[in-house]
Amino acid sequence: MRIDIISAVPQLLEGPLNYSIVGKAREEGLVDIYIHDLRNYSTDNHNKVDDYPYGGGAGMVLTPQPIFSCIEELQDQREYDEIILTTPSGTPFEQKKANALSVKKNLIFLCGHYKGVDQRVRDTLITKEYSIGDFVLSGGELPAMAMVDSIVRLLPGALGDSESALTDSFQNDLLEGAVYTRPAVFKGMEVPKVLRSGDHQKVKEWRLKQSLKRTQEVRPDLYKKFRNEQ
Amino acid sequence: MRIDIISAVPQLLEGPLNYSIVGKAREEGLVDIYIHDLRNYSTDNHNKVDDYPYGGGAGMVLTPQPIFSCIEELQDQREYDEIILTTPSGTPFEQKKANALSVKKNLIFLCGHYKGVDQRVRDTLITKEYSIGDFVLSGGELPAMAMVDSIVRLLPGALGDSESALTDSFQNDLLEGAVYTRPAVFKGMEVPKVLRSGDHQKVKEWRLKQSLKRTQEVRPDLYKKFRNEQ
Repeated sequence: MRIDIISAVPQLLEGPLNYSIVGKAREEGLVDIYIHDLRNYSTDNHNKVDDYPYGGGAGMVLTPQPIFSCIEELQDQREYDEIILTTPSGTPFEQKKANALSVKKNLIFLCGHYKGVDQRVRDTLITKEYSIGDFVLSGGELPAMAMVDSIVRLLPGALGDSESALTDSFQNDLLEGAVYTRPAVFKGMEVPKVLRSGDHQKVKEWRLKQSLKRTQEVRPDLYKKFRNEQ
Repeated sequence: MRIDIISAVPQLLEGPLNYSIVGKAREEGLVDIYIHDLRNYSTDNHNKVDDYPYGGGAGMVLTPQPIFSCIEELQDQREYDEIILTTPSGTPFEQKKANALSVKKNLIFLCGHYKGVDQRVRDTLITKEYSIGDFVLSGGELPAMAMVDSIVRLLPGALGDSESALTDSFQNDLLEGAVYTRPAVFKGMEVPKVLRSGDHQKVKEWRLKQSLKRTQEVRPDLYKKFRNEQ
């Protein structure tokens, strides 16, 4: 898989993509990730990538020229399956979307920034607009990295023995319940006996019950969806 | 404001917190951010911070000892308003939560990692559990940085003239509609005439209409909520 990330503030993409599961996946050649600084594509004398919004008001808008230049150059070299804009006004990114993107070959992420991206970019180049939640960030860089992380960890070989994608939250529409590790007693607090019983069936039942309880308490919306699907 | 971030993989926190709005807010002393490596608090001979889950199954669990040691040490030095765990099984983080946290004095973020955190930590230390969406990540580091970013940009003085918190998406429960900047015509695509008219009332009406249209299309749930509140 190849992922190209385009940003007006590429410094925000330093770090997280070089470590842990994504870092290892890159080292092992499971994914190639390229970061593009929008400023390098600006034909403006000062490498400007933003300008004032038409109609007035606060905030700057990413201009179309550098984005078109960058994406068109990439498209000249290969076909892209999706060109994704990260923006709070996109549809919510969910596990099913990560699953679907993890089988693609070439992806572009354009990180929204400032007040937003000129609408003409969205109308002609962008194929998907995703949000990671109903809150505002300084830019779409953290969301892009979160989406990339959720996709890359699904690539065959990305997860070691110590991780497991299949039993994670959301793969069955339920939240994960309580988990415990050693010591059996910590500051007087004991690990539930059933987990130490060695009775696999009982452990399984306990976990499902915890998972259902947690989902019902914290996310009644997910719980209802799960119940309707049974 | 002071923010302490605790992580088993602190390398994942490099970069994003040093640049852009959060980086500037730190330079200007609006916020102090401290990153704590869980391994430094482990009393284990190999600085281990995770162990196998009781009851079996894939994935490792963060052990209680290093987390208790780290948080208790911090609590000895000052009072914390909230101790937040980032986990996919938390309640969804939203703008209203960012608003509420932005007026606090001392916050701890504990980044969930691996299969999760020993339940005894959640039962006794954690005051809030937040998720940034229904998808699984390699760790809670990116979510913690996203939450910190959304909080810090609300601190008085954090945003420059080129940004605006008040007119952002979600501050009025609606998504932002289309935005345009120069040039007026790009690759034959024209900026809507109303935005170039200089008629502020008409611009305002057009923007509200775009915003309503976008919200209805992409987020019928938010649209319904907005309608019910009118």
